[in-house]
Amino acid sequence: MNFSSKLLEDAVAEFAKLPGVGQKTALRLVLHLLKQDSAEVDRFSGAITKLRHEIQFCQTCHNISDQLICEICSAPKRDKGTICVVEDTRDVMAVENTNQYNGLYHVLGGLISPMDGVGPSDLEVDTLIERLKDDGVKEIIFALSATMEGDTTLFYLNKRLKPFNITISTIARGIAFGGELEYVDELTLGRSIATRVPYENSLSR
Amino acid sequence: MNFSSKLLEDAVAEFAKLPGVGQKTALRLVLHLLKQDSAEVDRFSGAITKLRHEIQFCQTCHNISDQLICEICSAPKRDKGTICVVEDTRDVMAVENTNQYNGLYHVLGGLISPMDGVGPSDLEVDTLIERLKDDGVKEIIFALSATMEGDTTLFYLNKRLKPFNITISTIARGIAFGGELEYVDELTLGRSIATRVPYENSLSR
Repeated sequence: MNFSSKLLEDAVAEFAKLPGVGQKTALRLVLHLLKQDSAEVDRFSGAITKLRHEIQFCQTCHNISDQLICEICSAPKRDKGTICVVEDTRDVMAVENTNQYNGLYHVLGGLISPMDGVGPSDLEVDTLIERLKDDGVKEIIFALSATMEGDTTLFYLNKRLKPFNITISTIARGIAFGGELEYVDELTLGRSIATRVPYENSLSR
Repeated sequence: MNFSSKLLEDAVAEFAKLPGVGQKTALRLVLHLLKQDSAEVDRFSGAITKLRHEIQFCQTCHNISDQLICEICSAPKRDKGTICVVEDTRDVMAVENTNQYNGLYHVLGGLISPMDGVGPSDLEVDTLIERLKDDGVKEIIFALSATMEGDTTLFYLNKRLKPFNITISTIARGIAFGGELEYVDELTLGRSIATRVPYENSLSR
């Protein structure tokens, strides 16, 4: 692209580094910001800089937090005997939005992916093991994506957690609510038949 | 969404104000920035702040520029007798990318749109008239979008420019290169028949 301004070109280049944002989208976003009040633009860039410099990660569950111990870990009403292991903070938000879970979390910060050079030492695995050494933890629930990386991580963690006397479970895989049978892939359908549940159980929420 | 951090929530809210960016996309972009070096994030927010505070608009053509007079207006090789009237800087870039135009530009900064409350006084119309008073301008080419707003603006400007003794033209409308006839709308096809050109002319570029 032929930019008439170096400042514009720089700002577009920075935006275009974001995932899923191409040159054209970046230009559209930058021109939008250019039309806003400068106070508005300062608030935008200020919020991002502040986030990056002041953000904390909870020392217990490693979720994004404003304090050293996050709100979930410090809530007295939460069931401290159950830990839900997730990939990142988005998954914590997804599980929280269901209103079906009242335990604690452990954020791994990624999934094992040899292709991307991510091994167990890059994730919060040792800190998870450390948490299990305190007695009181009775169940670990894995809520990981149903991908190659998720399965690899699950396999690895299951092996590491075996020595501890705790229940290990994973969230159920199957057909989504509203999903039409003919569009479900064979693997999911096959597994959902193999792990079928009594009709009464499928109704209770 | 249930955010675990106020800082995160603020940054996501700012991103979600951008056009075409929803809450989920905003969160994805913010989490991406959170994984980057803080120097990288400072460069991102710095580029945007700098752009907003230091950007200039060319005093002649009103295009975005780093100087008071933009590179195109100050280039000695450009044909100063022709002015191409466009909506915004993206259109300047689009015309420049064709390498088919060697004249100057005039950026209106929008199109007349009563629905959005944009009238002629909100656009750089008077400055365009001012430019025509210097003799030397022989032709005005309108390169506006083929929308209701573009046509309204064209109609209005044509009336304002009539008193001046200059050629007024608009870019040709018709079937795009690679366009299949059966998918072209009737209006475009009808007009492209009415404004048909001799075969020899259609070949020359």
